[in-house]
Amino acid sequence: MTTGRLIVIGGDAAGMSAASKVRREQPQREIVVFERSPHTSYSACGMPYFIAGLVESADKLIARSPEKFREKFNIDARIRHEVLEIDVTGQRVRVLNLADSSEAWEAYDQLLITTGAEAIFPQLEGSDAQGIFSLSTLASGIKVFDFMDKELPRSAVVVGGGYIGLEMAEALVRQGLQVSLIEKGEQVMGTLDPDMGILVSEALREIGVALYLNESLTGYEASNGKVTGVVTDQRTIPADLVIVGLGTRPNSKLAQQAGIILGEKGSIRVNPRQQTSAPNIWAAGDCAESFHLVSRKPFHVALGTVANKQGNVAGINLSGGYATFPGVVGTAVSKICKYEVARTGLTERELKTLGLQYTTATTKTKTRAGYYPGAGWITVKLLAEQGTGRLLGGQIVGLEGAAKRIDVLATALTAGMTVQQIVDLDLSYAPPFSPVWDPVQTAARQLV
Amino acid sequence: MTTGRLIVIGGDAAGMSAASKVRREQPQREIVVFERSPHTSYSACGMPYFIAGLVESADKLIARSPEKFREKFNIDARIRHEVLEIDVTGQRVRVLNLADSSEAWEAYDQLLITTGAEAIFPQLEGSDAQGIFSLSTLASGIKVFDFMDKELPRSAVVVGGGYIGLEMAEALVRQGLQVSLIEKGEQVMGTLDPDMGILVSEALREIGVALYLNESLTGYEASNGKVTGVVTDQRTIPADLVIVGLGTRPNSKLAQQAGIILGEKGSIRVNPRQQTSAPNIWAAGDCAESFHLVSRKPFHVALGTVANKQGNVAGINLSGGYATFPGVVGTAVSKICKYEVARTGLTERELKTLGLQYTTATTKTKTRAGYYPGAGWITVKLLAEQGTGRLLGGQIVGLEGAAKRIDVLATALTAGMTVQQIVDLDLSYAPPFSPVWDPVQTAARQLV
Repeated sequence: MTTGRLIVIGGDAAGMSAASKVRREQPQREIVVFERSPHTSYSACGMPYFIAGLVESADKLIARSPEKFREKFNIDARIRHEVLEIDVTGQRVRVLNLADSSEAWEAYDQLLITTGAEAIFPQLEGSDAQGIFSLSTLASGIKVFDFMDKELPRSAVVVGGGYIGLEMAEALVRQGLQVSLIEKGEQVMGTLDPDMGILVSEALREIGVALYLNESLTGYEASNGKVTGVVTDQRTIPADLVIVGLGTRPNSKLAQQAGIILGEKGSIRVNPRQQTSAPNIWAAGDCAESFHLVSRKPFHVALGTVANKQGNVAGINLSGGYATFPGVVGTAVSKICKYEVARTGLTERELKTLGLQYTTATTKTKTRAGYYPGAGWITVKLLAEQGTGRLLGGQIVGLEGAAKRIDVLATALTAGMTVQQIVDLDLSYAPPFSPVWDPVQTAARQLV
Repeated sequence: MTTGRLIVIGGDAAGMSAASKVRREQPQREIVVFERSPHTSYSACGMPYFIAGLVESADKLIARSPEKFREKFNIDARIRHEVLEIDVTGQRVRVLNLADSSEAWEAYDQLLITTGAEAIFPQLEGSDAQGIFSLSTLASGIKVFDFMDKELPRSAVVVGGGYIGLEMAEALVRQGLQVSLIEKGEQVMGTLDPDMGILVSEALREIGVALYLNESLTGYEASNGKVTGVVTDQRTIPADLVIVGLGTRPNSKLAQQAGIILGEKGSIRVNPRQQTSAPNIWAAGDCAESFHLVSRKPFHVALGTVANKQGNVAGINLSGGYATFPGVVGTAVSKICKYEVARTGLTERELKTLGLQYTTATTKTKTRAGYYPGAGWITVKLLAEQGTGRLLGGQIVGLEGAAKRIDVLATALTAGMTVQQIVDLDLSYAPPFSPVWDPVQTAARQLV
């Protein structure tokens, strides 16, 4: 049985999943968590809905507070403590107490790095003006909310058409702002193929977002220290509020400085048990690498689901058990007002990069029996390997009830199913839920 | 290439799927369909919603009319023609034209039996009174609708707490009737375990249905030839309208009389290509046997999804191709007002009958992130093989967004996944769609 002091760097999904798991397995073990922000275990994914006014307070996004971890779980969760350095050979970390600026070395027997990811925020002309935000921590979400509450912005520009950008565009539309979105690609949602992304672009325009595609951010205009506009390579768009949603990068600097091997996109390389290249050091969550079960290659994704799973696996291993995290198939889902968007597996671009021959089918059907009230459209695109018919990817855009169907495809991908096997699946049918052939099967039928 | 005259007995899902497939593959082939009722290709599953007033007319339930089959597909669809006899050695069928009572022998080179299933309707004291109905064909649904329109019944008794019984109970509640339901079992929805069925019973009571469990139908009371009440082994319940929903049995009499081998519950035994024991005779749909991929035993189920799949497989084979129908995992779904119910795989009772050792877990969670508006409860029960952890079955009861999650379990069952593999699945997550751990994974986590 593994014993000794466990230190966890980072108190969100992965770190606290691991800490909680270790606590359940080892009631007496000393567990210390250092968290730079004032919050533990919050739902970063919930911030757009908080800003949209759909969630009544930021507190609702917190699953468990530091107090709760201390009192109910006997986990020494220290917020506003930033780890500055890992001493691998000395098995200790240097910690800055942000409250009193004191520093101390803390020894560990095992160390878990769950430092997450940080928002990409390019330093451009005017980017220090007030009213320009990115979203990563809960604190950053609260800042946006407070700014809106105090400054009452009337126009906003969202930079970047990925998940966070789109969800923030919806949130700001809901709050009555005039919203523009700039995206340097030809379509929003670059994790979809362009022919599916165009459906999302249409959805955005329909909810009133002014969309500027093929356009890049070059800087900001400001007046009296407050942002007044976003400058692109083609125009200046007036804005009282700017949300920079250009994605995230793994927070792996600490690990890198300690000589730990990094992988995809600078994430911390781990084996399936979540062990890093350094002795007694583990990593999990948005800062750690994953594995793509379809491309069979290292992969990085910053998602709460993966963070929870990796954290749980790390927790089992750290407490002397044995568990592995097999990897991901690249599943993601999002809602933009009434529109639902989902994807799993590989896109055409990814398949071309891998040199895989593939066929595709795209079908537009209904989410329910055509005669049942509320049947909405659903477009499903499937990608399958040429010759074998093995499913390689799926993308869905549609109305209510569309997106969660991606899970069938994610499961089929994991099992290595062919499109014929998807056609044969005994999926549930009743008029309020589906046509007789489920939309994913209708698409699969085009490929057999 | 198979050629010659193809005769299809029965013009609904399986028969018309097969006929349409053959027509696509063999544009010149002679295809004759005999259908006893006045309708082809209708959604029997849609009848409760038509009766509920959710579908504006019965026509909406018809996918393709006989005229359309004749004109657009060159399929000789003859409605109101009943096949009375199959002459296996003579390769011909005796057909009664219900319009003019004429009879004729019609020769076939290949015959496809898609005679469907018929509602079980016990002959009891008073069962010939007006106002007592079962539902199987579209015509029977229209009869109920017309009766309600003309007689304005105020109270109804539904006999039987299976899918049709429950959907009809909802339909009649929606139409403002006072509805009672009698069920001889301890819970409604006998295809669920009793501990999950109780949730459905509660849902029924909540929508105002008076529920009489452990009670059997013994007869009817009538006055002036019209039903006035339902007699059970414990009481008489007043009723102006009675719906008998005691399930269906395969319509296999023709096949039986022709010496064709029958299987489970009297359904026509077929191989995976949908061939019967008789030369050049095929069968598909509600009248035909299927195979259960979890119990690995012959199985019978009357469902539109299976009928379409078997019909399609039969059509491919009848036109000279090669296809097989691998079988089912027993998936079903239903909606009772705001409540959603779904199941797949095997129940505890079925597992005991098979002598399989199993473990179960039941978890009650939410359909969305807890803080997201509209998050409703969802109860998931999983059954897994003891020792191996292989998934054996799943049951779901909950609010909006609950039921379609059964498809992940149906796919996992088909792939032979373990509960650990379900925990590891990369299912989609965003606050409007799911908690971080999808409810099916939360249940699976209890079993690893």
